[in-house]
Amino acid sequence: MKSQRPYYAVIFTSKHTESDDGYAEMASRMEVLARQQPGFLDFESARERLGITVSYWENLEAIANWKANVEHQFAQQKGIDNWYSWYKVRICLVEREYHFSKQI
Amino acid sequence: MKSQRPYYAVIFTSKHTESDDGYAEMASRMEVLARQQPGFLDFESARERLGITVSYWENLEAIANWKANVEHQFAQQKGIDNWYSWYKVRICLVEREYHFSKQI
Repeated sequence: MKSQRPYYAVIFTSKHTESDDGYAEMASRMEVLARQQPGFLDFESARERLGITVSYWENLEAIANWKANVEHQFAQQKGIDNWYSWYKVRICLVEREYHFSKQI
Repeated sequence: MKSQRPYYAVIFTSKHTESDDGYAEMASRMEVLARQQPGFLDFESARERLGITVSYWENLEAIANWKANVEHQFAQQKGIDNWYSWYKVRICLVEREYHFSKQI
């Protein structure tokens, strides 16, 4: 990740309905598309009972542009209509970070 | 969640080693313990290839206290010694949020 502070995290937490038709393909297409957007930094995703996707962006304008992207808008509507019973989006300023990596 | 702005999110992203001995029990104990801390707001977790845990807190002091909690410190060291090959912690100010909930 091209880390540079300050940057933003968008935390997308979701609960799914029983219909998953086409979801995996769309989720993977949205990751590819997000990675092509200006201001994109990184993307992390995991799903068990909850789905949690965190994307990282250079600034708020990049986040607004990604939200307004036409193909992403279509996916968001499909999500509301079909896949999600609930979701929450939090837009966050990353104030501090640290990491650990095992010596191999 | 007792939502109140401003509040903080701690995004903990991890990759696991092949050793998962005792991990599930410890992870579930840490969630119970986190929920008992002053300033705790919410906890979300999912794991596939990556593990993503996001905890939400009223302020930075609550986050620092939780990090310093003796039982949590022991778990953090066990994580470094055994379970994690890599992790990253990001402390974030939640600036904006919105949600969707399906009518039933």
